[in-house]
Amino acid sequence: MRLKVPEGSKGVLVKNLYLVIGVPKKNQERASILKRTMAKGEEVRNKQIILRDYVSGFPKESDMALKTSTMRLKVPEGSKGVLVKNLYLSCDPYMQSRMRKPDGASSLIDSFTPGSAIIGYGVAKVLDSGHPDFKEGDLIWGMTGWEEYSLIPATETLFKIHYTDVPLSYYTGILGMPGVTAYVGFYEICSPKKGEYVFISAASGAVGQLVGQFAKLIGCYVVGSAGTNEKVDLLKNKFGFDEAFYYKEENNFDAALKRYFPEGIDIYFENVGGKMLDAVLLNMRLHGRIAVCGMISQYNLDQMEGVHNLISLISKRIRMKGFTVFDYYHLYPKFLDFVWQYIKEGKIVYMEDKAEGLESGPTALIGLYTGSNVGKQVVVVADV
Amino acid sequence: MRLKVPEGSKGVLVKNLYLVIGVPKKNQERASILKRTMAKGEEVRNKQIILRDYVSGFPKESDMALKTSTMRLKVPEGSKGVLVKNLYLSCDPYMQSRMRKPDGASSLIDSFTPGSAIIGYGVAKVLDSGHPDFKEGDLIWGMTGWEEYSLIPATETLFKIHYTDVPLSYYTGILGMPGVTAYVGFYEICSPKKGEYVFISAASGAVGQLVGQFAKLIGCYVVGSAGTNEKVDLLKNKFGFDEAFYYKEENNFDAALKRYFPEGIDIYFENVGGKMLDAVLLNMRLHGRIAVCGMISQYNLDQMEGVHNLISLISKRIRMKGFTVFDYYHLYPKFLDFVWQYIKEGKIVYMEDKAEGLESGPTALIGLYTGSNVGKQVVVVADV
Repeated sequence: MRLKVPEGSKGVLVKNLYLVIGVPKKNQERASILKRTMAKGEEVRNKQIILRDYVSGFPKESDMALKTSTMRLKVPEGSKGVLVKNLYLSCDPYMQSRMRKPDGASSLIDSFTPGSAIIGYGVAKVLDSGHPDFKEGDLIWGMTGWEEYSLIPATETLFKIHYTDVPLSYYTGILGMPGVTAYVGFYEICSPKKGEYVFISAASGAVGQLVGQFAKLIGCYVVGSAGTNEKVDLLKNKFGFDEAFYYKEENNFDAALKRYFPEGIDIYFENVGGKMLDAVLLNMRLHGRIAVCGMISQYNLDQMEGVHNLISLISKRIRMKGFTVFDYYHLYPKFLDFVWQYIKEGKIVYMEDKAEGLESGPTALIGLYTGSNVGKQVVVVADV
Repeated sequence: MRLKVPEGSKGVLVKNLYLVIGVPKKNQERASILKRTMAKGEEVRNKQIILRDYVSGFPKESDMALKTSTMRLKVPEGSKGVLVKNLYLSCDPYMQSRMRKPDGASSLIDSFTPGSAIIGYGVAKVLDSGHPDFKEGDLIWGMTGWEEYSLIPATETLFKIHYTDVPLSYYTGILGMPGVTAYVGFYEICSPKKGEYVFISAASGAVGQLVGQFAKLIGCYVVGSAGTNEKVDLLKNKFGFDEAFYYKEENNFDAALKRYFPEGIDIYFENVGGKMLDAVLLNMRLHGRIAVCGMISQYNLDQMEGVHNLISLISKRIRMKGFTVFDYYHLYPKFLDFVWQYIKEGKIVYMEDKAEGLESGPTALIGLYTGSNVGKQVVVVADV
């Protein structure tokens, strides 16, 4: 190969061009895009994962489709947005709610637009910027599209990445939205105290694994539930939980909780809802706290399961608080300092499940609802 | 009649002896007891309402019985308790839970003892005292027995009555447990702000009528639900609620709430549970608060109705807090100053439903669960 841009090409020749040689087609394409993205303003192919139509119940792969459009790698004149190349996309349970037809009442955030790219958290590199706070080459995390390139018209939801000596994909998890969620959910909502009894459902997920470790760091007794024996093993042997159990093998959640919490539960970090919540309510201690972060067992149901034991809220004087991370991003700098230190000291471990290529996005996302991911589910779109 | 104690009698002759003449039997008995109680240490007849056996579901009259025993009107040697003559007994919804067989888990307080007198809040007069803080003639309110005379071995649950220029029965309601409940439930749990939208279920009850008036006093928009048209009328025309509705005439609570709260509900003061709670959850505003005070619609059920819309806790960032007044009695002096002033200024009205005579207790108590009381249900046992 001649280390020279061919006559008439608007591309640039880059060092990692070797990827073109002898690598799978997907990576060839990626390398070829990479090359082309170097030319600011050029119109390039832009592969996207779009939502076909609104979904009821859990999404299926066929609810999404790969679409190829084009994108001019330049922020439109007068726009204060940024144009980014997406590197990592985050699969998060809440995304199912954005696939539903808007009902105006229970939605946390707007639904996706059928026919358009799915929106979610991701890590990306700025190729062009109309905003003074961002410049070409900046790395950011925040809301972006499930596509190779995104024009992000409003930069309010974007955070600049300063620490880069960790895998950048961490900004979809421990250093991003799930990290802040775990941090505020545990420290702000649960008011934890040393020695308290903490239960976490869906505990090996992006949020749960961190909540458990935060709780251990302040000296709580921590038990998690998870959906495979492999995850239970991880909770006990990698994330340092005191105990963990495989909920699908328990036919009586109340009995299981009584086994692990003979003294009762002070703090429940709720990720699943339904029958587990009902059993937890029977096992809470006086003045217990429940942080309601998610209810993943219920998202596929047209009518959610009934919860029968709310009377315990009175007898046990329980505080139950739903929250979303959107209200707490002002704490991000404080959180980042906090968690960064622990990562550096090796006091917090973190586990990701990486799917390769934008095309793998639908399968990866759907896997969240069947529990096939082990750790934080990330889709790798491109190298930086 | 000779105005002289008969030879050999240990009784005293009292001014209100005229009651004996030409009044119903019940009152004759009362007057006759009155006379006899004057003789400290005498053994007198003591009528009691006892629990026959544990109850499942709502109590029936036949679950209680009138029993006549005797009582020596003197605190036993060495006891730090007080011996009181009961004047007014309070019928409160929570009492049903004390009639159930103890299950060790969900009970707020101990169950009653079958065969013994029912225990509840009441207003009484001290006849003898083994405790330096109480002396003969003191008026108190607190936990006492459903009987004419009670020996109260522990005085921790008793409050001395200092303000007597209101009906003493008020200390079973606006100036007693339900008053403190309304006060802490609204001000401490709901964090109310001027202009907020407040919904109260079972709104004409002892607690609800006060919560609504507290909310109006700080400039909230207040709607209550109640179980008869008469109560709805009271809420609007006596207690100053902005709106009220008869829930039994609404076949769709969600639609009813949308009619009264087109902008949604900021604060829900929960007294009923079940379907109403489910509908409220659909109509809460962002950052809404739910104070869970009671769930009277559920107390008679072996399994409580399922609540299906808890996912709203997340999307609306709702704080839901169960509480019981027992944790807040340290605020009683502050509360009393607060509410006393409003009563004196005529800014708070209060409504009682008085049943005459200890014998009427079972019917009065049971009426709470069918909603037959209008205002705070009190049983008049004796005159002071």
